[in-house]
Amino acid sequence: MRIPILKLRDCLLISIQWELDDQTALQFQEDLLHKIHQTSARGVVIDITSIDFIDSFIAKVLGDVINMSKLMGAKVVITGIQPAVAITLIELGIRLEDVVTALDLENGLDKLEQELGD
Amino acid sequence: MRIPILKLRDCLLISIQWELDDQTALQFQEDLLHKIHQTSARGVVIDITSIDFIDSFIAKVLGDVINMSKLMGAKVVITGIQPAVAITLIELGIRLEDVVTALDLENGLDKLEQELGD
Repeated sequence: MRIPILKLRDCLLISIQWELDDQTALQFQEDLLHKIHQTSARGVVIDITSIDFIDSFIAKVLGDVINMSKLMGAKVVITGIQPAVAITLIELGIRLEDVVTALDLENGLDKLEQELGD
Repeated sequence: MRIPILKLRDCLLISIQWELDDQTALQFQEDLLHKIHQTSARGVVIDITSIDFIDSFIAKVLGDVINMSKLMGAKVVITGIQPAVAITLIELGIRLEDVVTALDLENGLDKLEQELGD
């Protein structure tokens, strides 16, 4: 199972709409980095509204993929972090430093376009 | 396996990035109609760039979901129809009447916004 990555202008949009298993999360990490390279995307919005539980492995993969994307020159916006997910991330010490967050996909995309407009 | 449906303002975006099996196609049909109802979406963009083969069942489901969406008041734009898919659709007599098509997701979204702007 793979997570579809949509290209919209110079951004990539991802909506994760089910709980991720470890294999899917790693596949997603690989796919996203490959897609950033392939499309020269400048920004990425990852919407996790539908995820209301996150384990330590998935949290680590998510943190990693954000840092990897930044290394490749793409800004990342995470949208729709649920209360329980926020609690888990902080309790696990995953800081998501310098990551822009937003309430939902459209806010995330607006914020990203603002950031990229600078 | 379900196909994620992204909500962006008053449109829904779907990118189908693998061959659909029958069960997934029917699940997608149900999910999309439900999501249109739930979000009061006025437009739908379905990107099928990654599909380079389509069988008669999937073609029928696709034709049906377009007509059903229209009944529910949502305009549908199909983007990224590959040559082989276009050939199959016409040969199967699936006309996709009044459906707007476009080359890729961003063109599709632009066309949809134009249509909805009227």
